[in-house]
Amino acid sequence: MNKILILGAGMSSSTLIRYLLDHSCEYDWKITVGDKDAELANSKINGHENAIAVEFDIFDEGSRRKLIGEHDVVVSMLPARMHPLVANDCVILKKHMVTASYVSKEVKELDQKARESGIVMLNELGVDPGIDHMSAMKLVDDIRNKGGKILLFKSSTGGLIAPEYDTNPWNYKFTWNPRNVVLAGQGTSMFIRNGRYKYIPYHKLFGRVEKTTVLDYGEFEVYPNRDSLKYREIYGLQDIPTIFRGTLRRPGFCKAWDIFVQLGMTDDNYQMQDVESMTWRQFINSFLRYEPKTNVEDKLCDYLGLDPDGEVMQKLKWLGIFDDKPVGLNTGSPAQILQKLLEDKWMLEPGDKDMIAMQHKIEYEIDGKRRLITSSMATIGQDAPHTAMSVTVGTPVAIAVKLLLAGKINLKGVHIPIKPELYSPILKELEDAGIRFVDEETEVE
Amino acid sequence: MNKILILGAGMSSSTLIRYLLDHSCEYDWKITVGDKDAELANSKINGHENAIAVEFDIFDEGSRRKLIGEHDVVVSMLPARMHPLVANDCVILKKHMVTASYVSKEVKELDQKARESGIVMLNELGVDPGIDHMSAMKLVDDIRNKGGKILLFKSSTGGLIAPEYDTNPWNYKFTWNPRNVVLAGQGTSMFIRNGRYKYIPYHKLFGRVEKTTVLDYGEFEVYPNRDSLKYREIYGLQDIPTIFRGTLRRPGFCKAWDIFVQLGMTDDNYQMQDVESMTWRQFINSFLRYEPKTNVEDKLCDYLGLDPDGEVMQKLKWLGIFDDKPVGLNTGSPAQILQKLLEDKWMLEPGDKDMIAMQHKIEYEIDGKRRLITSSMATIGQDAPHTAMSVTVGTPVAIAVKLLLAGKINLKGVHIPIKPELYSPILKELEDAGIRFVDEETEVE
Repeated sequence: MNKILILGAGMSSSTLIRYLLDHSCEYDWKITVGDKDAELANSKINGHENAIAVEFDIFDEGSRRKLIGEHDVVVSMLPARMHPLVANDCVILKKHMVTASYVSKEVKELDQKARESGIVMLNELGVDPGIDHMSAMKLVDDIRNKGGKILLFKSSTGGLIAPEYDTNPWNYKFTWNPRNVVLAGQGTSMFIRNGRYKYIPYHKLFGRVEKTTVLDYGEFEVYPNRDSLKYREIYGLQDIPTIFRGTLRRPGFCKAWDIFVQLGMTDDNYQMQDVESMTWRQFINSFLRYEPKTNVEDKLCDYLGLDPDGEVMQKLKWLGIFDDKPVGLNTGSPAQILQKLLEDKWMLEPGDKDMIAMQHKIEYEIDGKRRLITSSMATIGQDAPHTAMSVTVGTPVAIAVKLLLAGKINLKGVHIPIKPELYSPILKELEDAGIRFVDEETEVE
Repeated sequence: MNKILILGAGMSSSTLIRYLLDHSCEYDWKITVGDKDAELANSKINGHENAIAVEFDIFDEGSRRKLIGEHDVVVSMLPARMHPLVANDCVILKKHMVTASYVSKEVKELDQKARESGIVMLNELGVDPGIDHMSAMKLVDDIRNKGGKILLFKSSTGGLIAPEYDTNPWNYKFTWNPRNVVLAGQGTSMFIRNGRYKYIPYHKLFGRVEKTTVLDYGEFEVYPNRDSLKYREIYGLQDIPTIFRGTLRRPGFCKAWDIFVQLGMTDDNYQMQDVESMTWRQFINSFLRYEPKTNVEDKLCDYLGLDPDGEVMQKLKWLGIFDDKPVGLNTGSPAQILQKLLEDKWMLEPGDKDMIAMQHKIEYEIDGKRRLITSSMATIGQDAPHTAMSVTVGTPVAIAVKLLLAGKINLKGVHIPIKPELYSPILKELEDAGIRFVDEETEVE
């Protein structure tokens, strides 16, 4: 009998928990779900015979260590900043650990200790990061194995609303953490194209989009996703002349979102004044010139070169950002206040389904010819808790736990799924579960 | 006999040291100048009988404390981040301290301990901060004392090249720390105008300029200078409907500088790739679209809406930023590389003189009428070490030291010069030294 501890019972854990419960009789697993909200944890196990729910306080070291010590593998679905505490305990108590999060500096530094303890720490096993790594590395390794030389690598992912439920002028709803969406892209994005390094500051990011189509889901925009350069080393593509990672949005989204960026409304670094008496109209006016005889809409159009009757203004008006209604907060940074507005308007409605879309484009040279592989995946959410986000994050994590407990992963230390040993069985099972990539290959002239 | 310790013998200390040496016989002062470069310290005292130069290492606690312990007052002209070390020693050793720098959080927290030690720590005694506070507070206090109500406060300062030596198309040369000039304005600028809060993100800052004229020095542009709102509390203007602080530049500067901001060239947060083999043309191209068939100049004009034959392009071409010459660095952030280019082009030439310009505009209501005071100051540098910057920074600091040692300052703890006790005698003596404000007052309809 193996014992699995799942820490965190939030949105993205639903499918993970369901998968492990569904397979618990077959594999003889006992599952503990810990959350600071024991009720939430309890609702997720729904009385399953092989599971218990417990209240879990990450900062209570004694009970945290006791709980971890009683299990064979720990799956941390907690906020990423809490992973190091869990990871440290896992090293001390010699327990395997699995997460869907980026490897932090703190976790990376535990690599040697984890090896010495004989445990493995598998990270970046969700969708992005996760399925993106696995599907890309499979393509890259396949090309290399047949003697091809990779010349271009582009990879983009987006969490979006499924087409049938795409009912607002932004063609966007919040399908995951709204705060992360509001702050997305801050800093400098960097990539390389035909040997030329390119750097895009945040305030230019949403004006520098490319277009693509994904399967029969129509057109998408792609904006650059932070530091693409570091993926050269991660994927073993050190000398590649073109590498680019992007985020997918529906056409027209970026141009409208850019208005918030230009105005400074996504800034989370200071608290605004007099928020408690602020209306939405005053909020947007705070970022415009003082010109009391000109109305706010005209000032905005003049400032940012917008057509008063154009699509961008229609999107903004639909949000109610020009309304004389209170923002309804007592304090807030621009980003926090904007998030409040968007949460009201971009909330998933009951019955809404989300979509995850992912696409890799890889060009390579073989036998003197240049070829392009376009590998695309789109998956639609199942139902309320089992959104596409929850399914694509939770399923690969759950499969990794299964492989680990079945003794099929012979790794020690800190890893991400870029080796065939990890990505091959996971991608295979994801495909059976309907999360599959469709590859097209063409010759490039 | 009083003993004065001056820490830091760099550019901005020249006039300070000269003043104190010139008055040392009259007041019976012994002066020690400490610098990590003992040669530099020695050159500044130039064999004066009342002075010695010593090598000074801020991080050598033992000798630092010994040196401070041997003096009555310490003037720290070191980089601002080093002040807390000196301040802490001054508290322990019960020595007065004077600086030209902004009060840091660390120094502010020493207020109570400084009071208990019976010492005073005078800060922000240079030009900006310094003369700006003193001259503004004198106007504010005068208006209040005659029963006026202040409705508008605007204050702007600029360190510029003197008109006679203004020989380049930017109408700008480096008259102080180039790094600070390159990074100036980052973050969000905020102010209030007729009761409306306004927030300007960095990428919009240099497009939101006002115009002014200063005395007979012609036209200037003013761009907002970071957080103006906090000056409401500092100056006791809590309920004022309009408060604004700005930086002065010559007309056309901001529009051209904005190109660097838009491109992301003033970013100091990441290191660029392959700097050692980079040309200036490649440097600017790194921030432009990949479009190998279009030349860099055309891409830039198209990207940022520039006239290929316009003034902005002429300024950029004059800098040599389109040249196929190596940048000549091995590593660097965009800001560091840009600074290298500008240092070559904006360097003061031998014989060049700089200028400090400052202007306050204050509107107030009295006897049912609204009045505007425009108070302006401009001062030109004397000669190479005694630039306008050095004179306006060093003279008020030196005067404060004199007042302190003469027992004319009855303050304890951490202060800035916003009280008449400090600003009145200092402004008086500055006026005698030719640093004087010219006030015009008009009725506002």
